[in-house]
Amino acid sequence: MIKVGIVGASGYSGEELVRILANHPNVKLACVTSRTLQGTPVEKVIPALRNRLGDLMFSHSDPQALANDATADIFFLALPHGVAAEYVRALIQGGKRVIDLSADFRLNSPEIYREYYGHEHPDVELLREAPYVLPELANNSWKSARLIACPGCYPTSIQIPLIPLLRDGVIGSDRIVINSCSGVSGAGKKAAEDYLYCERNESMKAYGLPKHRHLSEIEEQLSLAAGDTVVVQFNPHLAPMHRGIATTITVAANGSIDDLYASWKKHYAGKPFVAVLPSGTQPDTRYVSGTNRVDISAVYDPRTKHFIITSAIDNLVKGASGQAVQIMNLWNGFSETAGLV
Amino acid sequence: MIKVGIVGASGYSGEELVRILANHPNVKLACVTSRTLQGTPVEKVIPALRNRLGDLMFSHSDPQALANDATADIFFLALPHGVAAEYVRALIQGGKRVIDLSADFRLNSPEIYREYYGHEHPDVELLREAPYVLPELANNSWKSARLIACPGCYPTSIQIPLIPLLRDGVIGSDRIVINSCSGVSGAGKKAAEDYLYCERNESMKAYGLPKHRHLSEIEEQLSLAAGDTVVVQFNPHLAPMHRGIATTITVAANGSIDDLYASWKKHYAGKPFVAVLPSGTQPDTRYVSGTNRVDISAVYDPRTKHFIITSAIDNLVKGASGQAVQIMNLWNGFSETAGLV
Amino acid sequence: MIKVGIVGASGYSGEELVRILANHPNVKLACVTSRTLQGTPVEKVIPALRNRLGDLMFSHSDPQALANDATADIFFLALPHGVAAEYVRALIQGGKRVIDLSADFRLNSPEIYREYYGHEHPDVELLREAPYVLPELANNSWKSARLIACPGCYPTSIQIPLIPLLRDGVIGSDRIVINSCSGVSGAGKKAAEDYLYCERNESMKAYGLPKHRHLSEIEEQLSLAAGDTVVVQFNPHLAPMHRGIATTITVAANGSIDDLYASWKKHYAGKPFVAVLPSGTQPDTRYVSGTNRVDISAVYDPRTKHFIITSAIDNLVKGASGQAVQIMNLWNGFSETAGLV
Amino acid sequence: MIKVGIVGASGYSGEELVRILANHPNVKLACVTSRTLQGTPVEKVIPALRNRLGDLMFSHSDPQALANDATADIFFLALPHGVAAEYVRALIQGGKRVIDLSADFRLNSPEIYREYYGHEHPDVELLREAPYVLPELANNSWKSARLIACPGCYPTSIQIPLIPLLRDGVIGSDRIVINSCSGVSGAGKKAAEDYLYCERNESMKAYGLPKHRHLSEIEEQLSLAAGDTVVVQFNPHLAPMHRGIATTITVAANGSIDDLYASWKKHYAGKPFVAVLPSGTQPDTRYVSGTNRVDISAVYDPRTKHFIITSAIDNLVKGASGQAVQIMNLWNGFSETAGLV
Repeated sequence: MIKVGIVGASGYSGEELVRILANHPNVKLACVTSRTLQGTPVEKVIPALRNRLGDLMFSHSDPQALANDATADIFFLALPHGVAAEYVRALIQGGKRVIDLSADFRLNSPEIYREYYGHEHPDVELLREAPYVLPELANNSWKSARLIACPGCYPTSIQIPLIPLLRDGVIGSDRIVINSCSGVSGAGKKAAEDYLYCERNESMKAYGLPKHRHLSEIEEQLSLAAGDTVVVQFNPHLAPMHRGIATTITVAANGSIDDLYASWKKHYAGKPFVAVLPSGTQPDTRYVSGTNRVDISAVYDPRTKHFIITSAIDNLVKGASGQAVQIMNLWNGFSETAGLV
Repeated sequence: MIKVGIVGASGYSGEELVRILANHPNVKLACVTSRTLQGTPVEKVIPALRNRLGDLMFSHSDPQALANDATADIFFLALPHGVAAEYVRALIQGGKRVIDLSADFRLNSPEIYREYYGHEHPDVELLREAPYVLPELANNSWKSARLIACPGCYPTSIQIPLIPLLRDGVIGSDRIVINSCSGVSGAGKKAAEDYLYCERNESMKAYGLPKHRHLSEIEEQLSLAAGDTVVVQFNPHLAPMHRGIATTITVAANGSIDDLYASWKKHYAGKPFVAVLPSGTQPDTRYVSGTNRVDISAVYDPRTKHFIITSAIDNLVKGASGQAVQIMNLWNGFSETAGLV
Repeated sequence: MIKVGIVGASGYSGEELVRILANHPNVKLACVTSRTLQGTPVEKVIPALRNRLGDLMFSHSDPQALANDATADIFFLALPHGVAAEYVRALIQGGKRVIDLSADFRLNSPEIYREYYGHEHPDVELLREAPYVLPELANNSWKSARLIACPGCYPTSIQIPLIPLLRDGVIGSDRIVINSCSGVSGAGKKAAEDYLYCERNESMKAYGLPKHRHLSEIEEQLSLAAGDTVVVQFNPHLAPMHRGIATTITVAANGSIDDLYASWKKHYAGKPFVAVLPSGTQPDTRYVSGTNRVDISAVYDPRTKHFIITSAIDNLVKGASGQAVQIMNLWNGFSETAGLV
Repeated sequence: MIKVGIVGASGYSGEELVRILANHPNVKLACVTSRTLQGTPVEKVIPALRNRLGDLMFSHSDPQALANDATADIFFLALPHGVAAEYVRALIQGGKRVIDLSADFRLNSPEIYREYYGHEHPDVELLREAPYVLPELANNSWKSARLIACPGCYPTSIQIPLIPLLRDGVIGSDRIVINSCSGVSGAGKKAAEDYLYCERNESMKAYGLPKHRHLSEIEEQLSLAAGDTVVVQFNPHLAPMHRGIATTITVAANGSIDDLYASWKKHYAGKPFVAVLPSGTQPDTRYVSGTNRVDISAVYDPRTKHFIITSAIDNLVKGASGQAVQIMNLWNGFSETAGLV
């Protein structure tokens, strides 16, 4: 049993983390912090977990105090963009291990960070140190790290299908066109007019064109896999649903559909959280909702010589909190699926 | 005042036609037919129109009888695929004019029809005769026709933004990638498990890959506009909503974003049912729901030299019944917007 | 043609008013005001009306200026609770006529106002003067008024079925139990966490128990109809949908089901916006959505000697803006249904 | 570890049973039967469980064969109404133990069965033998039974709040008015037009008035608790959501709100699946979705001297499959929450 803490648990990913960790066989959920909710019982804020959390309260969230405290060994950071760096430095110096769910430590390159975020990264040293861990595809060297960057939701839905194919040269690396549709929880628990029920219901639209921030993470990772600079078109959309990302990728075929499936099967044999569907069966967000699974599939179009590759994930689970727990499981030698089925 | 009839009004497009025509200032809705519902008051089947239809009943739907009858001058056919041909021939011979909402007469080429539908077209002569009328883009020669093919929902959302740009050479005609997301009403009022509330709610998925039947209509029309064979990738999706199609198109830029907007503005100046949105404002199905409008917009991505073009329509209105009424208005010299605002 | 103005058009009822009045055959929509949106084109805020409003802009909303201005003769107030009084006094003194959609002038009794709102009514004289007009049930004396209070959404769904029955003594007036389920738009366009898509989707719950503010209006009107004090149990609920109120009322039968239907038919014969459904056919919010209609029905339960009475309305149309326009139509001698079908 | 079988697993409750039992620590899911799906991998029919079920297949469903087979010791029947009796008799005679999720064995009285179902019960002896087990409220004598009737969804949401209060005399037993709103999955996985996405979306309506079949079960159990005949008004509604029942009960207060809460706390202290919410906090289906919990709350209305009691459950979990597993847990001496958190 390890003791874990969650920093910033008032949003949707934080809630999902509490849900998973409260029921994890190898974990004691030792503390849950929130600046604004200190002293409030967690089950008041997450009524879905009534009768499950005992008298767990939101506690203070001062980085230094958390770092010195013996309460927890591993911290999950579920903070808004730009806030994590301060916590990470303090916690690492206090000997804690950290899994950051934000985008703050996902890039390798400080230059790309500056381009996409408009300012210098606040802690370039840690940025360079932090491995980016998509558990199915990362090599094992990450396990000795102190700080891990957990991949984003769109990037997970894109990299799981594409990275094996780029590594194996089964697809061309130019002219990749990616369209993703996300549920509304992807926008977080922000009280903004744009996310009201009456605004999003019966609404389907593109947004963030042409340069969504996740693009930096996507292209950096795809380029590493291809061994070459990969530039993609990434078109995100908002769909009228709570959870889920459905991604559809058009890419030049550089081999047969059998080659494509062989590459996937080689990479994902025995992986509990990847399901390779037969060609012609499309992933559906409904079937991955509440799970840590990625469903992937592909067809070949002889008219265009394209593969059409499709994937589906739950943005809050495999796209955030479930994946973070999967990382923790592997990091600590627990069963990869502990707490996740 | 002209007298119109609707053949096959028990589905969603048929219902929408009744709704529009019951309130049209230049029209008397003279008959509404359905094989299975004969003798039933229409308002029992379309309760949304209670108190609006008087004692209008579903009547018999024998093609010959309708053709001989003096009840109506123009017929709208809202029948399932493959059923329209028999009606069309009889009605035309009886001197009626016909607007067909099905896909039966949309193609010019009997060969492409055979390729996509797996059998010979049942009436090649009429297929060749019937103009395909997207009112904003068709030249006026169609007005003397006896039979008009009304464009499909996906094709409308695609052709309105693309055809001006292909005509003006502002975009490249190869490597066009189209992703469309449709509401569930696009599947019609079929009592199939796949369209149950509990199956479609919280579900986002691609389907019909890689060769949806609408592709034939899309490519034929885009090729005519480009003056060359256009092959596109068309990826349709089902979204958890009642109405609406959101389309996102990735296409090589062959000019500036200003050129693109100039082409649109030239083609659509004064067109009441096209709204050209500023670059950066994305069309949203919610805002076109219940209207006959197409909203279109575009951005340029300097990284990929692509335009990302987006559009939104209501699949049952501009994608079917509203467009059919717009055609009727122009055909008869009524105001283009009569009954449609 | 009369000239009308809308004060406070940035919310959902305001938007619905603009939609209806922009297309009304007897009306020129002369001004649309909003403190915060002055100078913004209305179609930017209500994109559903693109291409329909010309260059109509939001204008200033100073009561005195509106009162002196010759722009409009009738004003619709779609303001939050407590704000209308100041406008009403100025507009009336400037010779304007006013239809107030808020709850500010709906009660007769200043004492009940104080009990429910916790402070004195700001203009008791006008409160006493303003008739409460449910058009199907009000006697014609209201037509000479200068200020009219438009009924609330829940009250409309309750009074239309109950008032005829209380007047005719067909039901008992004690132990009436009313359960209503409202769509989320009933809460207005407030950027509050509670109305986010992810909070309301898949959520059904009671709220406002046991003394919702609309109760004062409901009981005052039912008491007038019964000629005696009526006390009811009113249980409002929030349902996961955009529009609509479904109301279910349990009440002691004081006659047969035929007596009940006879009372309804006597009161509602020829009324275009009330549909009396056969016993056993339940009203459905889906069928009244976007219409100004109330659907009502009832069954008798011999086990309990109760009638179960059900109704459905669109809360934004018959429950607010449509009803306000219906009042304007009757007030000005227009067709009752002008702009509303 | 016990071996269990599920008979009739192709519907929504069956799917939920598979989901729970596939992950239950004390159970081997030995067989899953379906007449129509024999030989199909279960994960093809329940794609949400991909990667979780190994090669589990749907098998034959002949009652006699299942009874003779050593495959399973306990069977869950998730069959449509009227089909269970044949299986139950065979399985019991073969020494199996059975938990029936249908309504077939829920009543004590064959007379009431005949009244509500219009025909004689097919196995009166077993009907009399089968205890009706709402685990929080049943006395322990049921544990020696061979066949258990699992309560229905509406009845669970009603009995959990009411039975303690009737036992303790805190509420009056006449004039109880119950309004319940159910998600669409309550209707099962039937391919009927009425349950299509486009029919149920944005739809709220009452149905089954005035004598829904569940009424027999509700009144029989409430009468047992009250020690007297209880007649209630039960108004079920269909709400536009997948899962969940929200129930609102109006009942005469026969004591203070403190007495009411004292009764609940006495009955439900330490019960893991009942959460008693503070007066004024309303249960919300969203917060019980996917859980086996019932949330209950109440307010007192001094104007009417009524309690307004509210509850929420997930109709497929606490209202069906979760409750059945809870029964199995207690029957076998497992932890009550095994497999259910």
